Amino acid sequence: VYKRPVRIETICTGDELLTGLTADTNSVHFQNRLLERLGVVVRRSTVVPDLRDDITEVIREVAARADVALVSGGLGPTSDDLTAECAARAAGVELVEHLGVVQYIRDRFQKRGLTVSANNLRQAIVPAGAEVVINTEGSAPMFILKLGRCTLFFVPGVPREYRHLVDTEVLPRLVGPKQRRVLCVLKVMGLFESQLDAKVRPLYASHPRVTFGYRTQAPENHLKLLADDEAALAPARADCLALLGDHVFAEGEQTLAEVVGSALKAKGHRLALAESCTGGMVAAELTKLPGASGWLESSAVTYTESAKQRWACVEAQALEKHGAVSEVVARQMAQGVRAAAGVEWGASVTGFAGPGGGTEANPVGTVYLGVSGPGVDVVERQFWPFDRERVRRAAAWGLMDLLRKKLRHD
Amino acid sequence: VYKRPVRIETICTGDELLTGLTADTNSVHFQNRLLERLGVVVRRSTVVPDLRDDITEVIREVAARADVALVSGGLGPTSDDLTAECAARAAGVELVEHLGVVQYIRDRFQKRGLTVSANNLRQAIVPAGAEVVINTEGSAPMFILKLGRCTLFFVPGVPREYRHLVDTEVLPRLVGPKQRRVLCVLKVMGLFESQLDAKVRPLYASHPRVTFGYRTQAPENHLKLLADDEAALAPARADCLALLGDHVFAEGEQTLAEVVGSALKAKGHRLALAESCTGGMVAAELTKLPGASGWLESSAVTYTESAKQRWACVEAQALEKHGAVSEVVARQMAQGVRAAAGVEWGASVTGFAGPGGGTEANPVGTVYLGVSGPGVDVVERQFWPFDRERVRRAAAWGLMDLLRKKLRHD
Repeated sequence: VYKRPVRIETICTGDELLTGLTADTNSVHFQNRLLERLGVVVRRSTVVPDLRDDITEVIREVAARADVALVSGGLGPTSDDLTAECAARAAGVELVEHLGVVQYIRDRFQKRGLTVSANNLRQAIVPAGAEVVINTEGSAPMFILKLGRCTLFFVPGVPREYRHLVDTEVLPRLVGPKQRRVLCVLKVMGLFESQLDAKVRPLYASHPRVTFGYRTQAPENHLKLLADDEAALAPARADCLALLGDHVFAEGEQTLAEVVGSALKAKGHRLALAESCTGGMVAAELTKLPGASGWLESSAVTYTESAKQRWACVEAQALEKHGAVSEVVARQMAQGVRAAAGVEWGASVTGFAGPGGGTEANPVGTVYLGVSGPGVDVVERQFWPFDRERVRRAAAWGLMDLLRKKLRHD
Repeated sequence: VYKRPVRIETICTGDELLTGLTADTNSVHFQNRLLERLGVVVRRSTVVPDLRDDITEVIREVAARADVALVSGGLGPTSDDLTAECAARAAGVELVEHLGVVQYIRDRFQKRGLTVSANNLRQAIVPAGAEVVINTEGSAPMFILKLGRCTLFFVPGVPREYRHLVDTEVLPRLVGPKQRRVLCVLKVMGLFESQLDAKVRPLYASHPRVTFGYRTQAPENHLKLLADDEAALAPARADCLALLGDHVFAEGEQTLAEVVGSALKAKGHRLALAESCTGGMVAAELTKLPGASGWLESSAVTYTESAKQRWACVEAQALEKHGAVSEVVARQMAQGVRAAAGVEWGASVTGFAGPGGGTEANPVGTVYLGVSGPGVDVVERQFWPFDRERVRRAAAWGLMDLLRKKLRHD
């Protein structure tokens, strides 16, 4: 475990981060974790292309300034993966093949019935003297190199591998036993970020030792409470829970889909969905969870009127009289799919996601959410003045949140 | 119009870019425009916090290396907006009040019935000698400063203002008439990144004026070709297309879902899906496209055996004899959902996404993809030795890719 670092910098390599193909979201993950666990802010973040001289130069520059550097990207099997080579150049050492990694890659490929190519084995080549850490999420290992007073952690840029290594290998090496801060994340639905902030702000003064922070994953908003110890955190958490009530759907890592799935599982009930404008997003989100087949019977993605009639037992007359985006049709979809599947719960969503469509009464952004269950028969109208993809996501999350509330209160 | 810049860098200032609150999406916009209009890739991108010494230092460093720098953020009215002051320090000049901007801010506030505060007028203070450009989207102006051979453009970080000034003021000053570079992105399915690289590598020597690059969005892989002119790019593109054949499903911005949607639309055909392990992901992806209801009739997310029988007309006997993850059931699902919907095309996916389940013959990672259409009746078995979410994504993309091929060849 290192002493508490004064200055931490990040280096990301990759043409795709400089050619407008993708934003650097890896660093956001690292920054969050670093602040939560260590209370430290990254001091500088540099992105360089897949060019030997640039990578080598920036490694040298950062090593001269920082106590710790996280270097990501350029450890893959292709010819534009240059980071190990540049790290060796910056440190003035040779490249060596790491036999443990060679064996790990061979085993990994063999298990999957794949042939190892020379390219794949390039990933076992690391700077001499580096500490090597096997990456259980991928082929390329992480390695750690000292350059002067700076410790550099090199990790792959593939987001899944990056996050895994940052969480399980980099942070534990940075955070000392008494440096751990305590964090609590309350996940909230039904409030915009500005509304959440306005509601919570009056609590700041009562909890001077707690740092309040916000994170938006629309339509979810997350309230982060950070403190040096549990004695400071617990009362702030209790006050926030009392203030926010039913808006809080989960704490920590738990997702909205998990809350819904757990509630169904606990009751021994099953769910059938009828989705129109969300086009299967609710089912796709719920089936991320292993074992979802125990409580999710089906989803009818009834993207047309004929499908709504065939699978969700919606009456042609209702479609004609009220339109597919209406309270009546949402109710019939939830009830119909529940009856057709012969399960305890039915849930439906129908709406105008845009950009076309909509009526004066139900403009683009209008969605109807229906839930039918034991003693429950409800339709909620919501309006989201967003673009197509955000309306769809808001509708999918809105339906899961409505289900959550009804599952708790039925 | 400047001469073609050799080296362009960006500097973003702002604590929020280093504390995990937000990713830097402004730079993605600039990078895209720069590549499109000028064929130039940003050479380095640096993020620094709202600290005087850090901002001043990085301005000096970048000015010593680059021909052009875009500096964003820190031009607002609050006390942590320090960029103008730091620019003046880096250049060794005084700060001066720009009377044109003072007048502009007064007029702007008056029009809106707002009172101008001293803070607002801080935004009229710029380094002496800077060229000032009024920002019609906000109060803070853009200014341009020469430091040695480097031209620095300072723009606000508010995304709307940033984009407006980049598009209308920065780029027109950078782009000469004959400086456009050319880029081509070939999107590939059915090859891992290392396989794609190994296949394409022998072409490098024949096209010395073309830069080859790769980007993974598993299971898609993208091959990027970048050149100074069409004469260099066109033969490389042709060679790659000939080499990769049917693996190439799209070029540029087009997505796999769009290719499938366009093919159906062009034929005037409709599609019904039956999804098991993907749980609605194929439908969710296809319905991202506005107007999908014209060619996507429905998707039956048949997550249980009962749903497979009810909606996809799978025989109980087939489920019992072959299991839900089998060629026979995949075929019945595709045919069944096609017949039930009364449309030209049916497509199905069934598999073991894991972590539980699987058999010796069909271990976790095995998926069966079925397509039934005019003269088409095919089932393809695929094996993806990945975790649950990656198996699901690979299966969803695999089905869209199989549909694409069959739609092209039927």
